[in-house]
Amino acid sequence: MKFFFCSIIVLFFITQLGCNKPESFDSVQVKKSIEEACAKYSEAIREANVTDIAYVYTVDATIIPPDGEIVRGKSAIEEFYKKLFQMGMKEGVLTTIEVGGNGDTAYEIGKSKILIQPEGQAAIQDSTRYLVIWKHQADGTWKVHVDIWNMSCR
Amino acid sequence: MKFFFCSIIVLFFITQLGCNKPESFDSVQVKKSIEEACAKYSEAIREANVTDIAYVYTVDATIIPPDGEIVRGKSAIEEFYKKLFQMGMKEGVLTTIEVGGNGDTAYEIGKSKILIQPEGQAAIQDSTRYLVIWKHQADGTWKVHVDIWNMSCR
Repeated sequence: MKFFFCSIIVLFFITQLGCNKPESFDSVQVKKSIEEACAKYSEAIREANVTDIAYVYTVDATIIPPDGEIVRGKSAIEEFYKKLFQMGMKEGVLTTIEVGGNGDTAYEIGKSKILIQPEGQAAIQDSTRYLVIWKHQADGTWKVHVDIWNMSCR
Repeated sequence: MKFFFCSIIVLFFITQLGCNKPESFDSVQVKKSIEEACAKYSEAIREANVTDIAYVYTVDATIIPPDGEIVRGKSAIEEFYKKLFQMGMKEGVLTTIEVGGNGDTAYEIGKSKILIQPEGQAAIQDSTRYLVIWKHQADGTWKVHVDIWNMSCR
């Protein structure tokens, strides 16, 4: 009988080894994490802090800006934001509309208000709508993996 | 001994019941399915077939067009494409650049060549870059769940 119970316990662990349970996707929790990351991004924009902005993205992230070439990887993303700040980017306030996904991959539909203040010129306010792919990281955070938006083309 | 083996077999099935294996995500196979759906979409554009275009989208899909309001749901998507055809939309040829995802959710980065021929006016050719969220359906197909692109804003 002792052997029987031991075998059952061993068998239980063996069967669980082959049981790759899916990572749970709690959309409420994921939305909360994404909104926190968005707030950090907005703060980094206000501070024109390129390092903090790049931290929000995965190391091999892709940005698909309007009217421009696709931007890939951390250093290219830092260069992209440096140019935005040279153009007078001052604000980028994000509002999450919808979050969905599966496992380590989430998507976010959102909108943003941006403020560009070129030196010696009138400020430009515009709104964008965006779609972002977020990837869950080993440290528990979610980071931007693909980032696209479109503007009012004014 | 017979009881022991029966118990092991029963236990094996019980442990497997709680073992929700993740849906596999074969990016090569998913890319192939997405490219097939994209080819159907392009064909439907050439034929100005709104029903076939709407079939490529999920029933509660979202389109985020440049310089416009967010479009949600099958009937709104059909109206959106009717207007595009009235504007002279003739071609939309898609090229998939990258596919990733998890379980039933995939994302696709791509580019397209579009041709608009307004009645009595010169044809307009433009290129777009897009990001699409695809959702795996019960019938085995993948359908567009979120669709955003940006253009050269000319």
